[in-house]
Amino acid sequence: MNVAFLSTIESPDRWLPLLEKALPQERFFVWPEIGDPAAIDIAFVAVPPAGALARLPNLKLVQSLWMGVDGLLAQDDLPRHVPLARCIDRGMVAAMCESVLSHVIDFHRHHYVYRRQQSAREWNRLPQSMAADRTVGLLGLGELGGEAGPMLRSFGFRVRGWSRRPKSVIGVESCAGSEGLARMLPVCNVVVCLLPLTPETRGILNAATLALMPRGGAVINVARGAHVVDEDLLAALDSGQVARAYLDVFETEPLPVEHRYWTHPGVFMTPHTAALTEPRTATAMVVENINRLRNGLTPLALVDVEAGY
Amino acid sequence: MNVAFLSTIESPDRWLPLLEKALPQERFFVWPEIGDPAAIDIAFVAVPPAGALARLPNLKLVQSLWMGVDGLLAQDDLPRHVPLARCIDRGMVAAMCESVLSHVIDFHRHHYVYRRQQSAREWNRLPQSMAADRTVGLLGLGELGGEAGPMLRSFGFRVRGWSRRPKSVIGVESCAGSEGLARMLPVCNVVVCLLPLTPETRGILNAATLALMPRGGAVINVARGAHVVDEDLLAALDSGQVARAYLDVFETEPLPVEHRYWTHPGVFMTPHTAALTEPRTATAMVVENINRLRNGLTPLALVDVEAGY
Repeated sequence: MNVAFLSTIESPDRWLPLLEKALPQERFFVWPEIGDPAAIDIAFVAVPPAGALARLPNLKLVQSLWMGVDGLLAQDDLPRHVPLARCIDRGMVAAMCESVLSHVIDFHRHHYVYRRQQSAREWNRLPQSMAADRTVGLLGLGELGGEAGPMLRSFGFRVRGWSRRPKSVIGVESCAGSEGLARMLPVCNVVVCLLPLTPETRGILNAATLALMPRGGAVINVARGAHVVDEDLLAALDSGQVARAYLDVFETEPLPVEHRYWTHPGVFMTPHTAALTEPRTATAMVVENINRLRNGLTPLALVDVEAGY
Repeated sequence: MNVAFLSTIESPDRWLPLLEKALPQERFFVWPEIGDPAAIDIAFVAVPPAGALARLPNLKLVQSLWMGVDGLLAQDDLPRHVPLARCIDRGMVAAMCESVLSHVIDFHRHHYVYRRQQSAREWNRLPQSMAADRTVGLLGLGELGGEAGPMLRSFGFRVRGWSRRPKSVIGVESCAGSEGLARMLPVCNVVVCLLPLTPETRGILNAATLALMPRGGAVINVARGAHVVDEDLLAALDSGQVARAYLDVFETEPLPVEHRYWTHPGVFMTPHTAALTEPRTATAMVVENINRLRNGLTPLALVDVEAGY
């Protein structure tokens, strides 16, 4: 089969050597050098050039190289009749678990306070809490929350989880629906957003939901910027309702230089690096999907376009 | 039996309710209200008042409330003929694992660089490494290293370990002796000091050993300040040989305000809070030792005074 690599962001140099080695029967093309567009069977995409997908009339599969497909679903030229698969990358999931745990411990063990004290040459021990004294609430119990939950539990944190539909995850007390969220938030010292961005989840961290958390907690957003209503989070940080925000994603990226997040003392920002797709591990699932397609099987991780993930 | 609580640091209010509940047969006294000194069988100590232990002629056990006993062994009035037990506290060990992992991820995932970038309003993604790309070297494979090693391994880090005598820890490639240390350090991107302080381990992180590490690594010291030769570490930070130091312990505590660690951009300092003894979990081992003593059994975690731990 013929595979076109379409990305304005991912470098083909990082992917093609691994893919060509793992899929010796396929022919790979890198946009715009794709030969006959009608001969392309599969598109590997990560922010494809505008109009590129529309020029490939015989696609059998659009395989995202990334886990999140909200950007792709918003592109006008995405062919809706072609199956679209997300990429569940174990390396990316592991990187996300590292980021989440690091932020949880930074809050739990007061490291952000100790950094301020160091700047002031102040030696002052704060009371130590045990992990079992903290409840972490995960918004989203899919590929990411399903891994992060048991990992946090293994450190002794109490873990709650919320998802659109009820799910069962080991070590996580889970709930669903808006009533479930309203019941969960009042016990969560830390809330971690790991949701897909859909019309239902947009703005889920807002004045009303943040007000349900115990005063002085932390918010970690490693999903999409639009999950947070920025003005509401800033107001909650200003009032002390939220003590700390760990933000990796923003509605506009790079975050505009005048945005208050850059300088707010309660915010730690990373430049959308909480978890990057790692070709060394992501290739495994991409290869599996190509082999499934070749053998007439349904690819894994197909996107439900209606649900938006 | 009669137990005297002797500490200038630990508050009896945090300990006695738990101990009295778990040991209903014993009588507890808090220094200086200890009644007849000759009737005291056991001393619970954490920096006891100078001269207090010498006044108790019939002690059967000195039970430290802390894991580290180097301070106690340096006290002139420690009765050398009385068995001395360390306290292996699962909560303290868990707290140490949290601190170590947090610092390892801060370095591994460039969080310290992202904090600097945030201050400069700079949006710049650094290359992501996988945990398997990093080797963490643990100095010490006792109660702390024996837990931290498998925990780090479970995240995918390659883990090496060094101890005085050869030890076997799951997931850790271990070595011993000075030749072992010289072989291990050149592959360690991160070195974590978890050693007891003894004449052999004092100053173990010095110009010679730091020079063996790959350039641009990180040093984490959560053991004792005297394990590090401060001037050598500062020189290694200044030259870039060591990119980052996470320091919880110092030869003089609180660290004097004029010390360069406070302001060095490569240093994150915490005020000896990497792991505090947690009475809720430490009580278990103290209770076990009292019951052993009552039943004529040898207490656990007795200190080898010659070895110094």
